[in-house]
Amino acid sequence: MTGWLVVAGLGPGDDALVTPEVTAALAQATDIVGYIPYVARVAPRPGLSLHASDNREEMDRARHALAMAAEGRRVMVVSSGDPGVFAMASAVFEALEDAPDWQALDIRILPGITAMLAAAARAGAPLGHDFCAINLSDNLKPWPLVEHRLRLAAEAGFAMAFYNPRSASRPHQFARALEVLLECCGPDRLITFARAVTTPEERITTVTLAEATPDMADMRTVVILGNPATRRVGRFVYTPRRA
Amino acid sequence: MTGWLVVAGLGPGDDALVTPEVTAALAQATDIVGYIPYVARVAPRPGLSLHASDNREEMDRARHALAMAAEGRRVMVVSSGDPGVFAMASAVFEALEDAPDWQALDIRILPGITAMLAAAARAGAPLGHDFCAINLSDNLKPWPLVEHRLRLAAEAGFAMAFYNPRSASRPHQFARALEVLLECCGPDRLITFARAVTTPEERITTVTLAEATPDMADMRTVVILGNPATRRVGRFVYTPRRA
Repeated sequence: MTGWLVVAGLGPGDDALVTPEVTAALAQATDIVGYIPYVARVAPRPGLSLHASDNREEMDRARHALAMAAEGRRVMVVSSGDPGVFAMASAVFEALEDAPDWQALDIRILPGITAMLAAAARAGAPLGHDFCAINLSDNLKPWPLVEHRLRLAAEAGFAMAFYNPRSASRPHQFARALEVLLECCGPDRLITFARAVTTPEERITTVTLAEATPDMADMRTVVILGNPATRRVGRFVYTPRRA
Repeated sequence: MTGWLVVAGLGPGDDALVTPEVTAALAQATDIVGYIPYVARVAPRPGLSLHASDNREEMDRARHALAMAAEGRRVMVVSSGDPGVFAMASAVFEALEDAPDWQALDIRILPGITAMLAAAARAGAPLGHDFCAINLSDNLKPWPLVEHRLRLAAEAGFAMAFYNPRSASRPHQFARALEVLLECCGPDRLITFARAVTTPEERITTVTLAEATPDMADMRTVVILGNPATRRVGRFVYTPRRA
């Protein structure tokens, strides 16, 4: 058996957003590796081993997946959304950097629908012009760098998508992020909170920055801030193309 | 018959990247509306009318689609990639803003794999940390605003994805963009040119900014610039998570 490693995105939650490319790879895999709730999305079958691990164990998970592929297994590392956006693809390459012997392995990254695109589609088209995507977690970078990026993104007039806005271990930072954004973008700027997008628990709420409160976000929420031209039309929110 | 309007993304080119959600909507549609090469990707069948139009006719196309949905037809506006990223969703909402009577229609946006995510996956994970997406065309915004955004994005340390980098009618601007980026990011920054990603004509090339030339991009190319930490590992290019 010739081993391979696929790092795949399962999309935001709804199986109707899993690409056929990913579904085909799942059917051929011998091992599924990932964070517990993502591995739980893969249907068990005979011959398929499921290796679920906790959050913040990305490097161990990546090394384990590479080691199994090197032994000849067909291994899939699964992320929600897209594996290249604040997910497992970078961790796999970090592990690969430390282990040159594994660099000749058959490694493929399969894209997926990342949360901000699914959220934007549900809300309308708030990312309809130049935008940025920022991970608000400071687990892997200093918080002042996050604030620096928020201010520059506001100055650039980008719409912004925020991943990992708030967690139990970081309850205060999203409040600070909202303060910075209010200062830079003003009270009337539209902000959309998209929780558990495309799942039965989905909840999409658009308010102004003046109305936004930190408890509108949790770890299952992706947040989208409009640019200065973003506006409502009927039940939708969108950013014009000439902004 | 109750009409609806769906604005859907067909992904970057390979049918294996079209979501089942989009495939199901295509099977129910009576009318497909879009730019000629995108409509050409939809298989003809009895009862399905194809309405292909030229580039730069987005507003006419959006109004036509809304009018047909209002008449009770099941209309799909198709974009490549994701409809909310430099594509038709915003144009539809612009048209809707001018026509309040149509705002009660059944309108849904179905996300797709946008070019930068497919390109990043093929190259490795160059968008593995905070990044921005910029449309380099100045058809709908002044060129100085593009340069302003490039400089601020560089200062923020974002990886950057560039859509519509170069066309026959705008041959010189991408050369100017490369000059600005070289000045802001230095000669060693990695830049990936991904042409016709996931199609038989796919070509992925990663070079340094010092080596990059304008003719490496055309209208079928999405360009990804790394951040200061982006590097090569084996045949891949990736951006670490702690950048």
